[in-house]
Amino acid sequence: MVWAGEIGDGYKMLFEVYEKIYESKNLQKIEIFRTKFGKMLLIDGCIQLIEKFEKTYHEMLVHVPMFTHSNPRKVLIIGGGDGCTLREVLKHNPEKVVMVEIDKEVIEACKKYLKLDNGSFENEKVEIIIKDGISYVENCKEKFDVLIVDGTDPNPTSMSLFSREFFLSCSNITDIFCMQSQSPAFQEKLIKTIVKNTSFFKNRAFYISCIPMYPFGIWSFLIASNKLEVRPNYNELRTKFANKRIETEHYTPELHVSAFNLPKWIAKLLT
Amino acid sequence: MVWAGEIGDGYKMLFEVYEKIYESKNLQKIEIFRTKFGKMLLIDGCIQLIEKFEKTYHEMLVHVPMFTHSNPRKVLIIGGGDGCTLREVLKHNPEKVVMVEIDKEVIEACKKYLKLDNGSFENEKVEIIIKDGISYVENCKEKFDVLIVDGTDPNPTSMSLFSREFFLSCSNITDIFCMQSQSPAFQEKLIKTIVKNTSFFKNRAFYISCIPMYPFGIWSFLIASNKLEVRPNYNELRTKFANKRIETEHYTPELHVSAFNLPKWIAKLLT
Repeated sequence: MVWAGEIGDGYKMLFEVYEKIYESKNLQKIEIFRTKFGKMLLIDGCIQLIEKFEKTYHEMLVHVPMFTHSNPRKVLIIGGGDGCTLREVLKHNPEKVVMVEIDKEVIEACKKYLKLDNGSFENEKVEIIIKDGISYVENCKEKFDVLIVDGTDPNPTSMSLFSREFFLSCSNITDIFCMQSQSPAFQEKLIKTIVKNTSFFKNRAFYISCIPMYPFGIWSFLIASNKLEVRPNYNELRTKFANKRIETEHYTPELHVSAFNLPKWIAKLLT
Repeated sequence: MVWAGEIGDGYKMLFEVYEKIYESKNLQKIEIFRTKFGKMLLIDGCIQLIEKFEKTYHEMLVHVPMFTHSNPRKVLIIGGGDGCTLREVLKHNPEKVVMVEIDKEVIEACKKYLKLDNGSFENEKVEIIIKDGISYVENCKEKFDVLIVDGTDPNPTSMSLFSREFFLSCSNITDIFCMQSQSPAFQEKLIKTIVKNTSFFKNRAFYISCIPMYPFGIWSFLIASNKLEVRPNYNELRTKFANKRIETEHYTPELHVSAFNLPKWIAKLLT
C-alpha cells in the first residue's frame, strides 16, 4: 500500500493512494492522488483539499462573506488555484471576479486533473491574473465588495499573506475581507500573528468549521471590515439565502450563525 | 521516530510517540503513549483520547444531556473507563453516579497512568460496576435521570451497544439518554444503524462537535427522551449554566445550541 498526506510537527494524516494522478515541482510541489475519499490535492506537502470534504471548507470560506455583504458585485480572490472558491463565488452571480494566483501550474493541473472548478475558469465574468497576491493588492486601484484569501499553509511562497502590511492593503480595496485563518488545534502561534496583524479592522470576527480534510479537522476563518457589520444577522441571512436560491451541500444560514459561537478554548486563543 | 495512532479503512492518523507508558492485551488491547499533544489512550487500535483535546469530547458528551435535564440527581454511565466522563458528570453535583465498565483494566490503567479522572473514581457518590453494560441495563431495576453511553468504536466487545434492544432497555430506565454516535465523515453505515435503531424515541436529536483527537475531527452525538424535550432552549441553558458555576474549557450554552445546527450533508445522513 502507498500512503500520502500531511506530515506535521508530531502528527501524520495519511491516506491510502490508489493512483498518483499528477506531480510537478517548480514554484511549489503539486501532487494529486486518488484516495478512498476522492481526489486529494497536496501543495508542498500540505493537504489543500480532498474531494469528499472540500465543500465543508469552500462553502464556509465563500458564503459567509458573500452573504454578509448586501450585494457583492465585484469579488477578488487571492490564491484559490484549485477553482473551488471561484466556483462558490460564481453561485452568487456577481458582475466580476478577479482571481490572483501566484502559481499558474496549480490552476492548470487542477483544471485538467482535479476538475472541481465546474467550468469556472472559463466563465466570462472571471479574470485570472498570475501574480503574487501581495504585490497585486498593494498596487490595486480597483475597489471590491468582497475579498477572499484562500491561501495555503505558510511556506516561503505564502508567508507574507499573514503580514499587517498585506491586511492593511486589503482593507483599502474591499468592503468585506475574509480569509482562512488556520487551525486553532495546532497552529496557535500563527493564529496569534493573524489576531495581532488584523487588530486595526473596525469590525472583526472569527468563525470556525469542522473541515474533515485538514489535520485535526477544525479550522478558523476571519471576517473583517472597516465599513460593515461582520457578525451574522440570522433573519437577514435566512431571507438572502432563500432569495438567492444557492445550492449548497454544507452551508446553511443556521450554520453560518452557529460558526461564530466558538468553543471556549478557541475564543481565548482568538482574542 | 516511533508513531502510533489509528489506522482505518483508507486513512491513518498517527502521532509521534515520545514514550510508551502502558500496554496490555487481555479483554481489549490497551495502550497509553506520550505525544506532543499529551498522553494518548488507544483501545484496540482506536484513539480514545488525547490529553490536549479530550475536553472537546467529554464536555459535549456530558454537559449537553446534564443541562438538558432540569435536575439530574442520578446518573448512569456505560463505558467511560478513562474517568473523564465521570469527572464532568460530578461537576453537576449529582446525588449518585453509577458507572458500568466492562473492562476493569481500562480503569486501573487510566487511574494509574492517565490521571485525567481528577480523583473521580474515589468520589463517595460514585459506584463502579465491572460488568457488560448491555446486561446491566437489561436487568436494571433502578431509574436514572441521565444515562450516558461513552463507548469505544464498535468491536466485538462493544458492537451490541448499537442494537435496538439495548437502546430500548436504556429508554426504560432513564429520562435523558445520550451517546456518542460516531463520525459522519467515515462511519456512515454505523450512523445509519444508530438512526434506525433509536427511531422509537419520542424526542430525538443529533448534535455535532469538532473533536480534533478523532480521525477527520468531526463527531456526532445523540440525545433522546420519551419524556422530555431534548432540543436546546437557550435562555434556560444560560440561566442554568450561570447558576451552576461549572468550569469548562470547551462547552458554553451558545455552543450547546449551535451544536444542533448541522451541516446540510450531515443532517441528510441523520434523518
